[in-house]
Amino acid sequence: MVNICLTIGTSAPPAQVMRALNTIEGLSEWWTLHTSGSPDIGGTIKFRFPDMGPDMRVEESSDDRVIWECTAGPDEWIGTHISFHVFEDNRQTHVMFKHAGWAEEVPFFHHCSTKWAVFLLSLRNYLETGEGQPFPGDIQINLD
Amino acid sequence: MVNICLTIGTSAPPAQVMRALNTIEGLSEWWTLHTSGSPDIGGTIKFRFPDMGPDMRVEESSDDRVIWECTAGPDEWIGTHISFHVFEDNRQTHVMFKHAGWAEEVPFFHHCSTKWAVFLLSLRNYLETGEGQPFPGDIQINLD
Repeated sequence: MVNICLTIGTSAPPAQVMRALNTIEGLSEWWTLHTSGSPDIGGTIKFRFPDMGPDMRVEESSDDRVIWECTAGPDEWIGTHISFHVFEDNRQTHVMFKHAGWAEEVPFFHHCSTKWAVFLLSLRNYLETGEGQPFPGDIQINLD
Repeated sequence: MVNICLTIGTSAPPAQVMRALNTIEGLSEWWTLHTSGSPDIGGTIKFRFPDMGPDMRVEESSDDRVIWECTAGPDEWIGTHISFHVFEDNRQTHVMFKHAGWAEEVPFFHHCSTKWAVFLLSLRNYLETGEGQPFPGDIQINLD
């Protein structure tokens, strides 16, 4: 199993970061505008894109952590886990991100790793300026 | 061992991409302005930042691939390998990137994974607009 590991730091306080991770309104501001469902533990959040539409079952949602299991979407994603751990030190709030449990380092793994980085920058922009770049306004890393 | 895997696609032709990867002038346009040394096989390229200054020994440099081994720099990087594989399909030129051989998924692994994504976007900007964002003008992912 292989994992995508990323992180960003932000001046936004932890409670504000968590709202961007555990509410439908927050999530739709930085990953995809087309987000619906239940962000509570045991609920399912539906993230929609034109070519893939992952469903995420919420496994954990606490003051400092969100963990989802992918229950529908790309074959490579089914059964993988996506986690966000939020904590602060004396300088900033950190978001430690992991998309864990990929079977192998296929090209789609490279692609998703880069796209997650782009979306974490979108998350930071949303937190700090009020404006993210969620799909369909996300930064493209490949030509269409 | 764990690996950072990323990719970008660009409209630039493969030969142009390779010049950004196998010449001191090209590398200095997207990773760090402070780049010197020999980019030929067996040579050492010195990339300089204020807080770490990796030296990379060039293991392979061909028409479609560059592979470096880190011989000096952060402890976590020593002995790791960084590779760029460049190929085209009927739509674009792909750069498949890997930073292979990390011992474990420490926070610095998360940090470098995100920073490499930022620098690959810098590479693409340089290829497509003539202007990258190399250090010290790189996008920050953490507060200073």
